[in-house]
Amino acid sequence: MSVVGKEEGEEQQVVNPWEVSAGKGGIDYDKLVDQFGCQRLDDALVARVARLTARPPHRFLRRGLFFAHRDLNEILDLYERGERFYLYTGRGPSSEALHLGHLIPFMFTKYLQDAFKVPLVIQLTDDEKFLWKNLTVEESKRLARENAKDIIACGFDVERTFIFSDFNYVGGAFYENMVKVARCVTYNKVVGIFGFSPEDHIGKISFPPVQAVPSFPSSFPHLFSGNDQLRCLIPCAIDQDPYFRMTRDVAPRIGYQKPSLIESRFFPALQGENTKMSASDPNSAIYVTDSVKEIKTKVNKYAFSGGQDSIELHRKLGANLDVSPFFITFSIFY
Amino acid sequence: MSVVGKEEGEEQQVVNPWEVSAGKGGIDYDKLVDQFGCQRLDDALVARVARLTARPPHRFLRRGLFFAHRDLNEILDLYERGERFYLYTGRGPSSEALHLGHLIPFMFTKYLQDAFKVPLVIQLTDDEKFLWKNLTVEESKRLARENAKDIIACGFDVERTFIFSDFNYVGGAFYENMVKVARCVTYNKVVGIFGFSPEDHIGKISFPPVQAVPSFPSSFPHLFSGNDQLRCLIPCAIDQDPYFRMTRDVAPRIGYQKPSLIESRFFPALQGENTKMSASDPNSAIYVTDSVKEIKTKVNKYAFSGGQDSIELHRKLGANLDVSPFFITFSIFY
Repeated sequence: MSVVGKEEGEEQQVVNPWEVSAGKGGIDYDKLVDQFGCQRLDDALVARVARLTARPPHRFLRRGLFFAHRDLNEILDLYERGERFYLYTGRGPSSEALHLGHLIPFMFTKYLQDAFKVPLVIQLTDDEKFLWKNLTVEESKRLARENAKDIIACGFDVERTFIFSDFNYVGGAFYENMVKVARCVTYNKVVGIFGFSPEDHIGKISFPPVQAVPSFPSSFPHLFSGNDQLRCLIPCAIDQDPYFRMTRDVAPRIGYQKPSLIESRFFPALQGENTKMSASDPNSAIYVTDSVKEIKTKVNKYAFSGGQDSIELHRKLGANLDVSPFFITFSIFY
Repeated sequence: MSVVGKEEGEEQQVVNPWEVSAGKGGIDYDKLVDQFGCQRLDDALVARVARLTARPPHRFLRRGLFFAHRDLNEILDLYERGERFYLYTGRGPSSEALHLGHLIPFMFTKYLQDAFKVPLVIQLTDDEKFLWKNLTVEESKRLARENAKDIIACGFDVERTFIFSDFNYVGGAFYENMVKVARCVTYNKVVGIFGFSPEDHIGKISFPPVQAVPSFPSSFPHLFSGNDQLRCLIPCAIDQDPYFRMTRDVAPRIGYQKPSLIESRFFPALQGENTKMSASDPNSAIYVTDSVKEIKTKVNKYAFSGGQDSIELHRKLGANLDVSPFFITFSIFY
């Protein structure tokens, strides 16, 4: 449906909230940063995070898994002045359980919450999955509830964390903000950002404001009442950037602060770095609920090893660790 | 924005939820019925309503103000079998008070509620007015509340009537139905029905499901729980027909009953029958809050009388009552 991220005459690189794929060379993150217009997360910024939080930077920062941002420096500036902010992340519940790729933003968000001691909202977009997948409302809600268990298991601060599903929470101040955002975005604009087609249903076209408005504290009156200018930091994978480009464009027009972002690379599929672990393809991913035996089968049957084409070549050259999903996974988690 | 209702090479007749205008001959209702594909409300059907309710038909029926319908006979069939239905009408709160044209559906709905002894839901689309007019959310909500007072004054059965504003009520089962409807309607489809353009904002494109879902009893679990197949009858002006064409198209695809409709002509503007009384042009309308003096000024300054072009002609021919808004108004209300 969408061709955002694709350029003519080059290897196809498609990156949007619903599709991530690249040619044999893997995702070109440098190109993505330039194309999306976000900023690189450099060593100086990582060092500043470490200094301000008085703890070593998370391994996802040290190892460049989180590699891009938008206005993270502004969040650090206000934190340095003794002001607060809040974190917003989320998940589209399209599978029974989370896989390793899904865990990345949650593990990182837990670190941010611990390090900065800030409130966190987690959005489960069960409405999105109803709209994009062939699911019933009931099934989407059930998956959201199942996924919430895996998310809770990451160990967030129970006093500072609000997890909600859209089917349960949309309404009131949240709906008012949805409508305010929607009034600022033309159909042409969402086509440009998300690549919708005229044959797409209007549920898809209506959805971007739903993911936008948790960026605004006034969407959560029971948490942030009277604090409408509180800044928001969003840890997410870079495929979600289109939503927040739109959000940042709209924010000042409705009197709100732009959210800041800290953005990760994709977690490689078992098949290698040219796509991400995806719930749409169960054999691309290892789930938190997989048994040891299931993991072994997936690895032996579906995984790309980084090995060479023949035993002779492999003995001579060894595995290509740059493209081995196992080595990459190991180096991310340990 | 919209050209729904307009045909090339003829006098411009534009009828959609946001615009009603016609050439000098006034609205061609016959053409509208054929074009929209609704049914004419004939004398036999009016007589059947009178017989079933054991009371004379309302003057708005006798005088043909309500002149078209969709599946009204099915509602009468089930009523005759001793089954129930519910009524749904609404208002977009774009003015401080209601004018005479706004009163038509409410006066008629009160008659239907009294005659059939059925529940009624009244939707105040404050979100719609926020999206279409240059209003704040707060101002839209305030107008909804003000308009509710005028609506309540029509004397509905307090035990059987639920009045809600979208900003207050969207959420839960209502939002689930909005998303279900949205998944069934493409962008191309709403462009065909409502005439949206690609430069329209996505708030407009998102709105039709909001007006659609009060047609479904499951949107009101506190009223109709366990009664998801209860039929709905919608009294409204015919400019609202596009919403319910869409709703009737979607209903069977999501397991719901199609709503039936009973549809009125427009109440003429003071300037004559080629357009309707409209809150967008205060001098076209007499408001329930206007003083006697204000009404006199409006009539003397802005109203078309049906009088002839000169005193001589007027003495010879008299006023043209067919186009006189005063005579028409008098014949509707008395």
